Amino acid sequence: MALSTQPYKGSRDFYPEDKRLQKHIFGVMRSISEKYGYQEYDSPILEPTEIYSNKTNEEIVNEQTYTFEDRGNRKVTIRPEMTPSVSRMVAAKRQELPYPLRWYSLPVNWRYERPQRGRLREFWQLNVDLFGIAGLEAEAEVIQVADDIMKAFGAKPNMYKIKINSRNLMDYFISDSLGMDSVQSSVLVPLIDRMHKMDFAEFSGQVEAIFTPSQRENSGPDQLFEFLKITSIDDLPISIKNHPSVITLVNLIKRLTNAGITNAVFEPTLMRGFNYYTDVVFEVFDTHPDNNRSMFGGGRYDGLVGAYGVESVPTVGFGMGDVTIYNFLESHGLTPTVKTETDVCAIIIGDTLEPALKIISELREMGLNVAVASTEQKIDKQIKIAVKNGIKFAVFLGEKEIKNQQVLLKNLENSTEEIVSSQRAVSIIKDFRIK
Amino acid sequence: MALSTQPYKGSRDFYPEDKRLQKHIFGVMRSISEKYGYQEYDSPILEPTEIYSNKTNEEIVNEQTYTFEDRGNRKVTIRPEMTPSVSRMVAAKRQELPYPLRWYSLPVNWRYERPQRGRLREFWQLNVDLFGIAGLEAEAEVIQVADDIMKAFGAKPNMYKIKINSRNLMDYFISDSLGMDSVQSSVLVPLIDRMHKMDFAEFSGQVEAIFTPSQRENSGPDQLFEFLKITSIDDLPISIKNHPSVITLVNLIKRLTNAGITNAVFEPTLMRGFNYYTDVVFEVFDTHPDNNRSMFGGGRYDGLVGAYGVESVPTVGFGMGDVTIYNFLESHGLTPTVKTETDVCAIIIGDTLEPALKIISELREMGLNVAVASTEQKIDKQIKIAVKNGIKFAVFLGEKEIKNQQVLLKNLENSTEEIVSSQRAVSIIKDFRIK
Repeated sequence: MALSTQPYKGSRDFYPEDKRLQKHIFGVMRSISEKYGYQEYDSPILEPTEIYSNKTNEEIVNEQTYTFEDRGNRKVTIRPEMTPSVSRMVAAKRQELPYPLRWYSLPVNWRYERPQRGRLREFWQLNVDLFGIAGLEAEAEVIQVADDIMKAFGAKPNMYKIKINSRNLMDYFISDSLGMDSVQSSVLVPLIDRMHKMDFAEFSGQVEAIFTPSQRENSGPDQLFEFLKITSIDDLPISIKNHPSVITLVNLIKRLTNAGITNAVFEPTLMRGFNYYTDVVFEVFDTHPDNNRSMFGGGRYDGLVGAYGVESVPTVGFGMGDVTIYNFLESHGLTPTVKTETDVCAIIIGDTLEPALKIISELREMGLNVAVASTEQKIDKQIKIAVKNGIKFAVFLGEKEIKNQQVLLKNLENSTEEIVSSQRAVSIIKDFRIK
Repeated sequence: MALSTQPYKGSRDFYPEDKRLQKHIFGVMRSISEKYGYQEYDSPILEPTEIYSNKTNEEIVNEQTYTFEDRGNRKVTIRPEMTPSVSRMVAAKRQELPYPLRWYSLPVNWRYERPQRGRLREFWQLNVDLFGIAGLEAEAEVIQVADDIMKAFGAKPNMYKIKINSRNLMDYFISDSLGMDSVQSSVLVPLIDRMHKMDFAEFSGQVEAIFTPSQRENSGPDQLFEFLKITSIDDLPISIKNHPSVITLVNLIKRLTNAGITNAVFEPTLMRGFNYYTDVVFEVFDTHPDNNRSMFGGGRYDGLVGAYGVESVPTVGFGMGDVTIYNFLESHGLTPTVKTETDVCAIIIGDTLEPALKIISELREMGLNVAVASTEQKIDKQIKIAVKNGIKFAVFLGEKEIKNQQVLLKNLENSTEEIVSSQRAVSIIKDFRIK
């Protein structure tokens, strides 16, 4: 029986036109990250399974990892996210690395999920992390990098929102205002994280069950529901307003405003699904009515490096997945068209193979990317193939041209032709590249 | 217990300096491939296990793949090589693709092997494939791409050899001269492939056992041993010299010579381990005494696309692994030093954060990659960190400079300083980049 030609469920083949778009998108991510002094790193796609336990979101670890035993009976996992790996790398050289570290990567990750819009099993994710700065200049910079990438994609501030919250603030509110203990809190937090995925009756029912009778009598649930509705830091209860976490949020939003970021807002329902966040968290939301959803996010996770038996490092970072970005660009009509890297197709006429190949070599040495058409096809077909490949020029190399040390240069878009020297052809073609 | 900071056995962490080298090496591979009109593609790292059965080398499939069941009980394999995946992709769009296809990719592959010099479990591999050309112009071009990449790495022709053979010729010799049937041949071919990994007594013993008594009486084994010693096509037995496969080899080596490739040689012991090769095969060998080994290779595999139930496509390709290339560059002293992408470190003096950040934004808008030093560290330490990161310049932003719309620019290599406008600082720093 013939083999199936389909890629594995939830993963994608990248044909050259798909790959060109991906390279363009990744190029933007790289160039903005580097503009802020971030340096690329990488780690293996397989990790010992233990590094994910209790660190990553439990749903991911228990239901969504690709975990198996290798041929030496080691339990390994294809990474579902980069944060545990990068924490491992920092821990391995904890003493010698030059902090602050500005690191980014573009790993491919795998999660066993039901493939749907914005979610695939194989996805790439830009990871931007700043290690070694305890103050909010770290949060401000990292969010600015994320915002600058959005702008570099052509996004306008009204197309997305940056929602900000503080785990520290939420912990304080939950223990101090609601009077919950850590066990109650550990049930409530994941519930708030999922609240937008259920209707309010279901959410409030589950929430009320967490409170003790006496907490309920003190109208704990209502306090919580009121709190979760707040949209501005100014509206926070007076008992909370002077908490350090609130001052951090106020200063952070001020800094972002100074940096020209006008679409950052406070959002008390934002928890982020990962257990390792310790203070500020943020998420970038698409505001397009057809694609109104969280695109990506991050926050501060000061404790993760310490899980490897070394002193902790204050850390802020985010992960920006490719799939949601593609959807965002598509929804807003921002998907770019990316030209082929091949400048010209060389068509060999008659029995001139050897001298023609010499001229083709020279064109390459002068910096052109040249595809040689197949002499096994008719000339018409050769031209058609070049056009189908998106190549804009052809050079014809026949006996006469070669004798005169010239080429016949054809613009395949408008079908104009001219006989010129190789040097002239190169400069015409390069000129076109810039446009 | 603290988690281990080691990466999984046989895989590598890439810290920024390692990643820079990798990006440089991959950049050379990409730019030469594109010079010949090849376009990048990609495919998922997980594939259905069935696509490797009988296609790839048996040792790899049975002993070296990372194969497991996913959570939906599908048998999947982390790709050990790219060829089955790219064949699948071509087969999926067999009718609509514009042949000849010039495709390249830079996948990460996994094989469960004993880690050793030149061999790791996680490795990258440039794959260059030309689909749709039956004639030897395909072999000539693909070998030229491989050779051009070696030259772009700074390799001289005496540092490596391109060994060439023909599966077709070997099949003809084995059946016609030795009189073996296909069962005998299927034992002999893998034995020849491994002959340089055993001593000759062991090899010859195993070879003789394959021959029938009457074949042995006709001195079959000696004929084979003599044949395997031949180093020039001219020395082939007269009975074989006019076989089409020999004419192909003669013409191929002539073409390569015309293209300036002087280190291509005939090598009858070269088989290549993969079952899918159908005609010309080649391997590039390092000639350095400390690293005398096969680095990478390829050949013609006309049948693989056809395994997916569509018409076959004539194909020639090669795969160039990163690990052996690193070893080659190291052995020959060709490993380049790659600068950091960060142009300058910005050091904020005193209480000037807000206006300083504005100037830093301007520097970035003018095209510089700027890392802001941590205000949580002393200035001395900030400079030290910049130097440790390989950054060549610092700009100091104090009250006075900001008032005068200037910056203090310091060259961290020779410690010279000057007070200049931001624009001037940008042009000095960009000037340095080119050097």
